[in-house]
Amino acid sequence: MRPNLSRYLPILDWGAHYGRSELSGDLIAAVIVTIMLIPQSLAYALLAGLPPEAGLYASIVPITLYALFGTSRALAVGPVAVVSLMTAAAIGEVAQTGTAGYAFAALTLAGLSGAMLLALGLFRLGFLANFLSHPVIAGFITASGILIAVSQLRHILGIGGGGHTLPEMLTSLVRNIDGLNLPTLILGVGATAFLFWVRKGLKPLLQAMGLPAAAVGILSKAGPVLAIAATTAATALLGLAESGVAIVGTVPQGLPPLTLPSLAPDLVGALLLPALLISIIGFVESISVAQTLAAKNRQRVDPDQELIGLGAANISSAFTGGFPVTGGFSRSVVNFDAGAETPAAGAYTAVGLLIASLFLTPLIHDLPKATLAATIIVAVLSLVDLSILRRTWTYSKADFAAVFITIALTLGFGVEVGVSAGVAVSILIHLYRSSRPHMAIVGRVPQTEHFRNVERHEVETRDDIISLRVDESLYFANARFLEDRIHDLVARQPAVRHVILMCPAVNEIDMSALESLEAINARLRDQQVLFHLSEVKGPVMDRLKRSHFLSELTGQVFLSQHLAVRTLSEPPQTDPSDKKGPIHV
Amino acid sequence: MRPNLSRYLPILDWGAHYGRSELSGDLIAAVIVTIMLIPQSLAYALLAGLPPEAGLYASIVPITLYALFGTSRALAVGPVAVVSLMTAAAIGEVAQTGTAGYAFAALTLAGLSGAMLLALGLFRLGFLANFLSHPVIAGFITASGILIAVSQLRHILGIGGGGHTLPEMLTSLVRNIDGLNLPTLILGVGATAFLFWVRKGLKPLLQAMGLPAAAVGILSKAGPVLAIAATTAATALLGLAESGVAIVGTVPQGLPPLTLPSLAPDLVGALLLPALLISIIGFVESISVAQTLAAKNRQRVDPDQELIGLGAANISSAFTGGFPVTGGFSRSVVNFDAGAETPAAGAYTAVGLLIASLFLTPLIHDLPKATLAATIIVAVLSLVDLSILRRTWTYSKADFAAVFITIALTLGFGVEVGVSAGVAVSILIHLYRSSRPHMAIVGRVPQTEHFRNVERHEVETRDDIISLRVDESLYFANARFLEDRIHDLVARQPAVRHVILMCPAVNEIDMSALESLEAINARLRDQQVLFHLSEVKGPVMDRLKRSHFLSELTGQVFLSQHLAVRTLSEPPQTDPSDKKGPIHV
Repeated sequence: MRPNLSRYLPILDWGAHYGRSELSGDLIAAVIVTIMLIPQSLAYALLAGLPPEAGLYASIVPITLYALFGTSRALAVGPVAVVSLMTAAAIGEVAQTGTAGYAFAALTLAGLSGAMLLALGLFRLGFLANFLSHPVIAGFITASGILIAVSQLRHILGIGGGGHTLPEMLTSLVRNIDGLNLPTLILGVGATAFLFWVRKGLKPLLQAMGLPAAAVGILSKAGPVLAIAATTAATALLGLAESGVAIVGTVPQGLPPLTLPSLAPDLVGALLLPALLISIIGFVESISVAQTLAAKNRQRVDPDQELIGLGAANISSAFTGGFPVTGGFSRSVVNFDAGAETPAAGAYTAVGLLIASLFLTPLIHDLPKATLAATIIVAVLSLVDLSILRRTWTYSKADFAAVFITIALTLGFGVEVGVSAGVAVSILIHLYRSSRPHMAIVGRVPQTEHFRNVERHEVETRDDIISLRVDESLYFANARFLEDRIHDLVARQPAVRHVILMCPAVNEIDMSALESLEAINARLRDQQVLFHLSEVKGPVMDRLKRSHFLSELTGQVFLSQHLAVRTLSEPPQTDPSDKKGPIHV
Repeated sequence: MRPNLSRYLPILDWGAHYGRSELSGDLIAAVIVTIMLIPQSLAYALLAGLPPEAGLYASIVPITLYALFGTSRALAVGPVAVVSLMTAAAIGEVAQTGTAGYAFAALTLAGLSGAMLLALGLFRLGFLANFLSHPVIAGFITASGILIAVSQLRHILGIGGGGHTLPEMLTSLVRNIDGLNLPTLILGVGATAFLFWVRKGLKPLLQAMGLPAAAVGILSKAGPVLAIAATTAATALLGLAESGVAIVGTVPQGLPPLTLPSLAPDLVGALLLPALLISIIGFVESISVAQTLAAKNRQRVDPDQELIGLGAANISSAFTGGFPVTGGFSRSVVNFDAGAETPAAGAYTAVGLLIASLFLTPLIHDLPKATLAATIIVAVLSLVDLSILRRTWTYSKADFAAVFITIALTLGFGVEVGVSAGVAVSILIHLYRSSRPHMAIVGRVPQTEHFRNVERHEVETRDDIISLRVDESLYFANARFLEDRIHDLVARQPAVRHVILMCPAVNEIDMSALESLEAINARLRDQQVLFHLSEVKGPVMDRLKRSHFLSELTGQVFLSQHLAVRTLSEPPQTDPSDKKGPIHV
């Protein structure tokens, strides 16, 4: 087997050893995940503002493509809450819900997101996800959970309205509250209460009744299906649709359609940024689930190959009537717990959903939208975790600022503004911190060759020598700070004749830092102060040799700080007319 | 004197010691700078697309305000080439050249930029300028110099046209070449050749003639004034304006007007980003000149106070008929060389320009625009330094990429796109590099307590212990890489029972890195591997104690790597049932 091919097609690895035990594990997991995915798919389509069948379509082919290209053995790919919310926000800007243009825009968004993920994977740019710090992700997921739950309230109340930010949604709820539909409210509140009970109370009850663990597992996951069956039956039997209960209505029966995403330049332009944000958020969510589950079996997921798998899944979603998808947290955990052994479990899940799409859609004609809303609300409230505010407040005020800004802006101005601002704030905070590299003036520990921070140790210093140790790599964000610091030190110590920069922790000097070193050297020369380096690492020295810096350096490069101070303390050698050439390490 | 007040009003410091020697130095410098600034002010107003008097107005009050608030003793503030080009590009988007709206937009731009600079200074956010890496600045200045020179060619040729990018300008030149005006071309080429000769040939000639150095200095700076006088006289005497030579025309005589910048939300919104870019580019240029000159006299400039000084200058420009200004390189060097001792030299320069604005403007009625264009071309060609491409190519390919992208995008898509892309690329490159922190697997140097990189030294390791030393602070951009690395190492070494993370160089662990450590700990626990830390710095340990991490840690925190390996190598203590509590450093 060529290693290169199996890198891009992991199925060649696990497929070669596929046997009976893998098959049975995968099949059982697929049944449980299918039961869980049918209501979730319908509900997240509703959340994205799309017809319910789009949710099924977005699950069938994408999950299969991921099985071919993905490296996680447990990840279940499909529509997820946060990405569906982001989809609604993005498409809401360019088209009206319920129109054909809206569904087309969803295809384009999935296609763009897929192309971006694929490109990131092929060019091995998975590191871009590192832009999203943990506080930003945690804040964003929490705020999205709140937005999603509030956005579903109108379906529970049976009223119209909309909005993509918390103020918009709340205003819309208040304005439309007159249209409250009592049967819808009863169904919605009932379904929500039932689902909460299933989540919190059913499992202990079943366990107390002495049912086997496997049965408890399946039954407690079947809660949403039960709620759907019960409320659909009630709506059909009591004719509640005539009383104003909004129902799903006719859902086409059949295979996922072959669709072509629109590539109109205006549409593509408007969706580029949302697609990028959806790609990155989706990838980060997906990879963290995949890595957590893989670790449990000492398996590996390859982040760049995961990008390719998710990219393929999204592109296929664009061509089969879907919308943006990613690896979902809860369904992947269920898949793993149920014993999925290989990505084939995903393919079997796709078959289950295909059967649903072919034969079961007539059964959900009378499914109330309120039940789907209840499913969503109960699912997303587990995403809301405001404790991140308290934890970051205790741990680090800078991280707290990032979380707070992300939550506030996501709630107040929507998902795109929120996550963009969070990323910007994280990067700003990082650049701010690293713009002040750790430095210490050092002196010699008496009777030794060691040099230590003058503020922490009893050390010997000399009036004519400043020894400054820098504890970080020098690059554009902190180079000017070094200039300022040396400038200050020299201005305050008029007797100084030598500045020695001690570089044992400098792993890199970029072009900006090199320019700063040249500026420091030139300014010190104007002040008749010689500039020296000590303990420069090998690779850094190699690079400095490729510049003019060493030939312009007024002082020397010493192998050790001890050697530097000893040499410069001997009067004859501090005479500039007797200047030695730099000693290259 | 209250130190706080003199921090914000540096004039209280130097004003207290102002005497006769400072006065004479400042006055001489002011005369030379005034002679230099008159043509520059007129020319840069032309470059910004504004009437020539705007250049004089932009020099008078702003230079005085800077003298009050600035800390540099030599910086000469006024219109400069790059900022004028950026002004033209920004305002060209919102108004038509020559209209009142255009001049109003210039006031708004100056006001916004001033407010931003002031805010950055008051909140001590000068570090934001660190976003601009040296390669980006160098590339941007070079590309701007080319753009400016090409933009002036049409004035030399006497044709119409415009454009803000190189392709636009060249296309416009080719399209309008039919309108070529021969007298303009002769004047323009003559003035350009003369100014080049003044720059390269006049100074040596005057020196060879035995003139005193001071006279040589003044005469060689007076080149532009001579060119203006000669071409204006020629145009007036020969009536060249009737032959189609574009002249400056009537310039109002009088004090700078009191103007009010427009605060229309649309206009402000459109100019926010350009104002930010102009502020930062202007600040970076200004501060580097100021620091270089201050160093020559072992003086200090305070970057945050410089922001306040430049902010005050720009705000005053908005209220006195000007446009964005900053500290200029060549005029500041001239000011310094001519012996300016204090910021008062700037105030005297303002008086000189005020006199020009009151009495000299009728004299420049017949000044050909081609002469001003020649002044600009000769001035900006010194900005063009393509050697930065070669130097970065030799030194670092990443820095080369940043320069190349900045130059290409500035030329191809204009100044705003160019500098924004450059900043983005610099930050991306930095995050990419720091997303792969330096790490080394370490082993014990035999017979010692020292641990060194296994790849570089002959050291002892054990199959059941992985010791990983991380050489950088852990934060969001590199935390996931650490997760991946440990994940990989453990997957490849099945006998491992302990992972020890050696942290002697970790100055910080942010919230994201903390989450990663928790994830590593949890995943290792699932694999029955204990996770330990060693040599954690005091402040980092203090912060960890404020989280749950230490209570969840499966292993221990050791004072030294030697202690860690010795403890874990003794069989009884590696038994998890005998696990000790973490040892807190």
